Amino acid sequence: MKSEADFLRGLRPLMKGRPWGDDAAWVKPSRKTQLLTADMLVENVHFTRRQGSPRQWGRKAICCNISDVAAMGGKPQYALMSLGLPQDFEQRKAHAIMRGALKACGEFDVELVGGDTARSEQIVISVAMVGIAANGVVKRSGAKPGDFVFVTGRLGGTLDSGKHLDFIPRLRESQFLMSHYRVHAMIDVSDGLSKDLGHLAEESRVGFRIYASSIPLHRGIRNRARAFLDGEDFELLFTLASKEAKRLLQDTRPQEQGFRFYPLGRAVPLKKGLKIVDLKGKEMHFPRMLDHHFTRS
Amino acid sequence: MKSEADFLRGLRPLMKGRPWGDDAAWVKPSRKTQLLTADMLVENVHFTRRQGSPRQWGRKAICCNISDVAAMGGKPQYALMSLGLPQDFEQRKAHAIMRGALKACGEFDVELVGGDTARSEQIVISVAMVGIAANGVVKRSGAKPGDFVFVTGRLGGTLDSGKHLDFIPRLRESQFLMSHYRVHAMIDVSDGLSKDLGHLAEESRVGFRIYASSIPLHRGIRNRARAFLDGEDFELLFTLASKEAKRLLQDTRPQEQGFRFYPLGRAVPLKKGLKIVDLKGKEMHFPRMLDHHFTRS
Repeated sequence: MKSEADFLRGLRPLMKGRPWGDDAAWVKPSRKTQLLTADMLVENVHFTRRQGSPRQWGRKAICCNISDVAAMGGKPQYALMSLGLPQDFEQRKAHAIMRGALKACGEFDVELVGGDTARSEQIVISVAMVGIAANGVVKRSGAKPGDFVFVTGRLGGTLDSGKHLDFIPRLRESQFLMSHYRVHAMIDVSDGLSKDLGHLAEESRVGFRIYASSIPLHRGIRNRARAFLDGEDFELLFTLASKEAKRLLQDTRPQEQGFRFYPLGRAVPLKKGLKIVDLKGKEMHFPRMLDHHFTRS
Repeated sequence: MKSEADFLRGLRPLMKGRPWGDDAAWVKPSRKTQLLTADMLVENVHFTRRQGSPRQWGRKAICCNISDVAAMGGKPQYALMSLGLPQDFEQRKAHAIMRGALKACGEFDVELVGGDTARSEQIVISVAMVGIAANGVVKRSGAKPGDFVFVTGRLGGTLDSGKHLDFIPRLRESQFLMSHYRVHAMIDVSDGLSKDLGHLAEESRVGFRIYASSIPLHRGIRNRARAFLDGEDFELLFTLASKEAKRLLQDTRPQEQGFRFYPLGRAVPLKKGLKIVDLKGKEMHFPRMLDHHFTRS
């Protein structure tokens, strides 16, 4: 790893046309509400040198932030990326992180406008993102008892399988929903269903009944508890009023556009708490740890 | 260090009224040009556990970004702060970092709207900031031959003295200049005069003649080379056309408001390069390392 100046100079060809290289970047905002979010990825916590490539780490750092903006119903516009890199880290790999980030930005029409570099013992990729909320902001706090709760894709096992490095942030699904439906509440599944449904419940002051049989698991995942506990899925979890939910279930456009919205259950009054319901109507607590008995229930 | 959820919950009382706690924060922008910047501070690179307090580290992380926005002629508005903290780091100290950051935000009318936390071996404080450029954007590239170059304060030795932890970002000075003068180019001195004048020179395609006798040094600093090499001063370096410079030198308002603008020298055509000039007119190269002979020249 050379000096910051050398590193940045090396990045210039990648950054052409962008204002990177001054004390700050300048952009022209519209009058719409803006979304601001940040995510920090740390080596051995969010990725390891043995799993995946530097391009994938850079990609993941951008995509986590895109997922956060999508989870608010917004469209990402600008990113800042700060890299902490060990002194002996190869410049080639540093550039690969950047290229992965720039590729992800390109796929989702985000402009990487600046950032910082620093020496650090672990690799740290810290991204901040600015988005626009043209169709309003969807918070975690808008779920109402009676709402249906949906998820945009399969869950569980993404850390073991490496899928967490290649996930597709559900921006297109979010944009579709924002254009055609009145979304009550939304969050992305980064901590696992248990925690993220918990966040929705806590912020909205509701409970949830999740149908055990309805949880879409990734191929090869047999233990349902993994959907509740694994995390790093980056699927969107959202609620719609019952009427809107029924309309969505009959809507043919999602399938035409390659989206899937899996109904998971319903929001219930706060005092009913968070429970899973099996086909016989038996209620169970959300799993708190991986338990082999759970798969049988 | 507890889980992220516990940590964030612990911060809620500090964050009241702010949208922190959803996937992204939402703000209403004006139509003015926005400035976006980011700085990452890493333990043992930008601060050490033995020098200064967690409050000062948090403060510094915010103030570096304010300085970057000021260096573009803008006014900072929103900050995002991501914290990487060791597992055994005391929650009390994590909160002190936050309080230092919030205090600095309060002093300069910046709203800390969100961020992230992660586990890391070293302490990492990564801040992104959004500012507004109501009076235009001042780039590094606007200096013209004949311009006078000024600095907003004394230089050198800030790392040894700990001043780098308590510096005051020159936002008020920048705002004064932007309201009353046509600033050609500006940068904050983070790498030392040699490198930062080098950045202005490179981006503006000019050279500089710096008057050896005019460089304001911090008390106790006798070796002028330290102003050129030490860095972390966070003073603003800016250029004005000769007429504007003369007007500034006669303006009594800066003194009334407690500002000082020290003239350092002039921009010259690119091919004349970067040189220091002593009182006898002798030209010298910028120092490249601390050299005791230099103080005698």
